Amino acid sequence: MKHTARALTLALTLTGLLGAAIAAPKAQPKAPIPRKSAQEILAASPASDWRALNPDNTLLMELASGQVIIELAPRFAPAHVANIRALARGGYWDGLAILRVQDNFVTQWGDPDGEDAAKARALPAGANAKLPAEFSVPIDAIGKSARFTKLPDVDGWAPRTGFAEGFPVAADPKLGKAWLAHCYGVVGAGRSDAVDSSNGTELYAVIGQAPRGLDLNITVVGRVIKGMELLSALPRGAAAMGFYDKPEQRTGIQRIRLLADVPPAERPALQVLKTESPTWTQLLDARRYRGGWFVHSPGHIDICSASVPTRPAP
Amino acid sequence: MKHTARALTLALTLTGLLGAAIAAPKAQPKAPIPRKSAQEILAASPASDWRALNPDNTLLMELASGQVIIELAPRFAPAHVANIRALARGGYWDGLAILRVQDNFVTQWGDPDGEDAAKARALPAGANAKLPAEFSVPIDAIGKSARFTKLPDVDGWAPRTGFAEGFPVAADPKLGKAWLAHCYGVVGAGRSDAVDSSNGTELYAVIGQAPRGLDLNITVVGRVIKGMELLSALPRGAAAMGFYDKPEQRTGIQRIRLLADVPPAERPALQVLKTESPTWTQLLDARRYRGGWFVHSPGHIDICSASVPTRPAP
Repeated sequence: MKHTARALTLALTLTGLLGAAIAAPKAQPKAPIPRKSAQEILAASPASDWRALNPDNTLLMELASGQVIIELAPRFAPAHVANIRALARGGYWDGLAILRVQDNFVTQWGDPDGEDAAKARALPAGANAKLPAEFSVPIDAIGKSARFTKLPDVDGWAPRTGFAEGFPVAADPKLGKAWLAHCYGVVGAGRSDAVDSSNGTELYAVIGQAPRGLDLNITVVGRVIKGMELLSALPRGAAAMGFYDKPEQRTGIQRIRLLADVPPAERPALQVLKTESPTWTQLLDARRYRGGWFVHSPGHIDICSASVPTRPAP
Repeated sequence: MKHTARALTLALTLTGLLGAAIAAPKAQPKAPIPRKSAQEILAASPASDWRALNPDNTLLMELASGQVIIELAPRFAPAHVANIRALARGGYWDGLAILRVQDNFVTQWGDPDGEDAAKARALPAGANAKLPAEFSVPIDAIGKSARFTKLPDVDGWAPRTGFAEGFPVAADPKLGKAWLAHCYGVVGAGRSDAVDSSNGTELYAVIGQAPRGLDLNITVVGRVIKGMELLSALPRGAAAMGFYDKPEQRTGIQRIRLLADVPPAERPALQVLKTESPTWTQLLDARRYRGGWFVHSPGHIDICSASVPTRPAP
């Protein structure tokens, strides 16, 4: 029996952005049915639907296993992003470590000696120990300037969801707030009980089912756009909450730099699909209305079930 | 600064089943607000709210890294579960391997030589090469006998969701169907283009954001109830769709046995919380209405955001 053939077919057809969508949608029978596969949609995308990375809003994390690229979200967490820039510029994380990997939850990094005032790494010049909580922004902040594109799909966690500048966004008109949703790959700033106890020194990335219950409870600062598997495939920590019980189990961080501080020739030449682009809208439809291998079309997506494509700069 | 202290607090308070729930819920202001934390709820749970594993419905997968326990779902996939029992009894997977790990999607195992008719492992006696598709069951099948408990929470993927015998279940009265939802840890049977091309020889476990778009498109056979991190923390495959491009990168499967075939003394003594129990209802409420560290209570959960607790048999 062709197990591997089957596996390949399964893989091919299950893969998020693959598969032609020719089946009639269930939930929205009258919705337009895309005739093109995700690959075809991407192949046909105009250059104007893609954007370069902003070096001032991009972190380059270097592990022995490779590079992790994190796009920051100054529109949603300006004080934290400013602090993270200062921390990166001061080499704060260089030589620190990944301290915690909890299965189906988060990978978290910071200062292993943070508890020991004598050993704790000092903050570099320009970095603040205390910041305001930035759990949400006024809903007006995701207007035209943020190029927010609303999803028509129902979301149980928030009355309004969509994408803004590549980020999954939720909003509640009644609360008058908008916030970054905790989807896979989203990066947040660890805090203690006090809402203003995060300063960006300790960061976590979501590595499992979107913990949307964290939304509006902690400051989200960005999202991993490349190298996610270097954070998600790490051994889970055996101690409580996924902390490593032995220092040697931690994964060392070689350094984290702001892309603006990386010599241009050494910067990863990556492009991100604009989430306000027609191409992104078509890709979402290709996931909403599945065909080919799919015999049932969900007629639905959510902000955490579609990830924004990146590509090497042509 | 107490980074680690902060991390611990963050970890403690972010952990799924932890955290007292004393905050007023957002979405359902009149809902009862649990006063007990998840730990307290579990500590207070009566023995009658727990069940033992059914040895005929449990797989014990042995990897060099440890044991993975999979609970099978005969109510939802009777033909596949019967075949999987025969495959396990015949030692079909013993010495085979994990062939594919695709980040934020699935870990998949089967016969590396499956494509080569000469090398492909033969099916043991009692195992069928061909089975019917078992993508759903009639909605009546999740009635009283299945002890289905409905969630009041809105789900964008299905008009009705809940839990039955420990499994996350979705249903659509209009379609007259019920099915197992693709949540983290759920195990399915790989298929090719033909809907009846799966036979349980090649299985996958969900290791990322719930790919609910697969629901009603493939046969779900069970879920991992212990050792999930042994499947989710594996190196991602570098080839297309997460397949390993070098045989030596694969993780070998020492053996997979049906628990009924494991000497009683060697069987993991594990109990699973009954999803029809008051304790489970209380735990769901403790996740729906958060307090303590949480300053915003989501007032919402979904079938993939809460995992059914297990414990060592007292």
